[in-house]
Amino acid sequence: MPKVHNYSAGPCILPQEVLQQAAEAVVNFNDLNLSLLEISHRSKDFVEVMENARALVKELLDVPEGYQVLFLQGGASLGFLIAAYNFLPMGEKAAYINTGTWSDKAIKEAQRLGDVIEVASSKEKNYSYIPSGFGIPNDAKYLHYTSNNTIFGTQFKTTPVSRIPLICDMSSDIFSKKINVADFDLIYAGAQKNMGPAGTTLYIVKESALGKTGNNIPAMLDLQTHIKKDSMFNTPPVYPIYVSMLNLQWLKKNGGVSWIENINNQKAELLYNEIDRNSLFEGVTAKADRSNMNATFVLKDESLTEEFNKVWNAANISGIKGHRSAGGYRASMYNALPLESVQVLVDVMKDLEKKRS
Amino acid sequence: MPKVHNYSAGPCILPQEVLQQAAEAVVNFNDLNLSLLEISHRSKDFVEVMENARALVKELLDVPEGYQVLFLQGGASLGFLIAAYNFLPMGEKAAYINTGTWSDKAIKEAQRLGDVIEVASSKEKNYSYIPSGFGIPNDAKYLHYTSNNTIFGTQFKTTPVSRIPLICDMSSDIFSKKINVADFDLIYAGAQKNMGPAGTTLYIVKESALGKTGNNIPAMLDLQTHIKKDSMFNTPPVYPIYVSMLNLQWLKKNGGVSWIENINNQKAELLYNEIDRNSLFEGVTAKADRSNMNATFVLKDESLTEEFNKVWNAANISGIKGHRSAGGYRASMYNALPLESVQVLVDVMKDLEKKRS
Repeated sequence: MPKVHNYSAGPCILPQEVLQQAAEAVVNFNDLNLSLLEISHRSKDFVEVMENARALVKELLDVPEGYQVLFLQGGASLGFLIAAYNFLPMGEKAAYINTGTWSDKAIKEAQRLGDVIEVASSKEKNYSYIPSGFGIPNDAKYLHYTSNNTIFGTQFKTTPVSRIPLICDMSSDIFSKKINVADFDLIYAGAQKNMGPAGTTLYIVKESALGKTGNNIPAMLDLQTHIKKDSMFNTPPVYPIYVSMLNLQWLKKNGGVSWIENINNQKAELLYNEIDRNSLFEGVTAKADRSNMNATFVLKDESLTEEFNKVWNAANISGIKGHRSAGGYRASMYNALPLESVQVLVDVMKDLEKKRS
Repeated sequence: MPKVHNYSAGPCILPQEVLQQAAEAVVNFNDLNLSLLEISHRSKDFVEVMENARALVKELLDVPEGYQVLFLQGGASLGFLIAAYNFLPMGEKAAYINTGTWSDKAIKEAQRLGDVIEVASSKEKNYSYIPSGFGIPNDAKYLHYTSNNTIFGTQFKTTPVSRIPLICDMSSDIFSKKINVADFDLIYAGAQKNMGPAGTTLYIVKESALGKTGNNIPAMLDLQTHIKKDSMFNTPPVYPIYVSMLNLQWLKKNGGVSWIENINNQKAELLYNEIDRNSLFEGVTAKADRSNMNATFVLKDESLTEEFNKVWNAANISGIKGHRSAGGYRASMYNALPLESVQVLVDVMKDLEKKRS
């Protein structure tokens, strides 16, 4: 069958070899003659998976001493609440940068506990840029931001400078580029982009920063609950964690985060250069803030929509329709998308221009 | 390879044909030439999975009009909190029956919102029976219970009679026997016993009972959030839901809940008869309250432990060691465990007795 160029915005493309191993484990895991899906999460075999997955996160992101790595459930959407519960004492202030739908939802959950100061927002320009030059109140308990905005296609190119603790939702660009974990008190990320399939959420937390809010935190929302139980307070989402582990092994084997960062830069450069060069297309975000993960663009002449859709579909490209709240096109170029797939899209764009000129 | 008799207490045995289909979808789903793990949860193909899974629950459990079926995350452990948030107005009373570890945890989460009246408990006898003959305060907002207690091996044989709304954690016996959904305002159940793999949690809720607490419920803990979005408020745990759907298809194809209930009764009868007959063993729970899912028993003479362990291991039996908080043995006989596997265990017990007499 012909190869599909999978630009899905998430859940998204995973490496073929990871998918092959992941399929085998469903039938016979570790030569136990049992499926991974039907063994106890407390079995030696699964505990090893959990420990490997946590260790790979530490190794690949160079996580310093004093940080804990957890694989939980609920997606970033539950993370919004968990972040607030664990870091925002009832009635106190937290600072949030609003760069899109996900920031906005994070703000709403934090408002249940305390006062949210929206220190900056790009909402008035449909979230097409990353704000800068804003002040951060010193009495806020933390500054929260979303590192990459999947829907609108913007990305923080540098970590905001902040004297108060930093919390970041890195769901859509974690493991795509080097980060300095020591800059953060909490990083959280849904797995379903660069880490693995849907169903688990990564937390990397500075342990000494926990337990200081005085909040009465429900057991499942308290990061200390999960740290005490080595990420196994209750039955974890076994399969999503296993596939994440395989995917992190793939990343490590190939050269780690700096290796993939280089490829991700090449993919983004190739596509954005074509968007800028091609007379039929234009980008929709501020150039300096363009996401390496999700490139958003539009046809200058909307009457070409049908024709363009026909040709990229014919080229076996899948998933570049823009999000319903942004329109146009969105090409998501997560870690496992090969450079060749980007070349195929670029060629289709070039061909359309030639045909039209 | 020899067949493993998989008595794991959960995650637990799933039908072989389900595992085969589940493995195929990891490589090529619906002949899309894409893995189920790498397509959008908003794609037509996955939306169909979600809708099929919800419809199968309704069909298999004969769910009446007015009830909603949701596949969420977090396990029963998050369900304890969700139940309380959605049904217990801050500061009001709720009634709980305490039949073991899981009831106890459910009570702790509800206490964050209101007053918990523990109407009955079997704690003083290490949860070895199901309490009866207790009063239920009319001013409590609901009565909560755990239908089956995996750790101690007890099970409610009938639904408690209650004039106040009923809420039940059915994690470990849902789909194992007929239930009358109309008796309940809320049923919730972690998937990893009779429904599917770990990573999703089923909610069956009477829609008209929601929205009455006046609580400020966090978005992800509010069942109305998920109902409005057809169980897709955020990225759902795609793979656990898919495998649950396959498993429910398997159940339907073979004859549904009444078919499996009959087999489950046969398995339980076979094993409990042997426990009672065999001079070396004895059960640890009240006979009337014995769980059909998890049979707990001990050797009368503990010095035979090593020998017994050797023979059941040699027979390729897996997972009958008792829970760390109960000791002894626990044979979990979930839906997919065949009668033949129970016969193998019974034969091992008989052989040991012969050898020792």
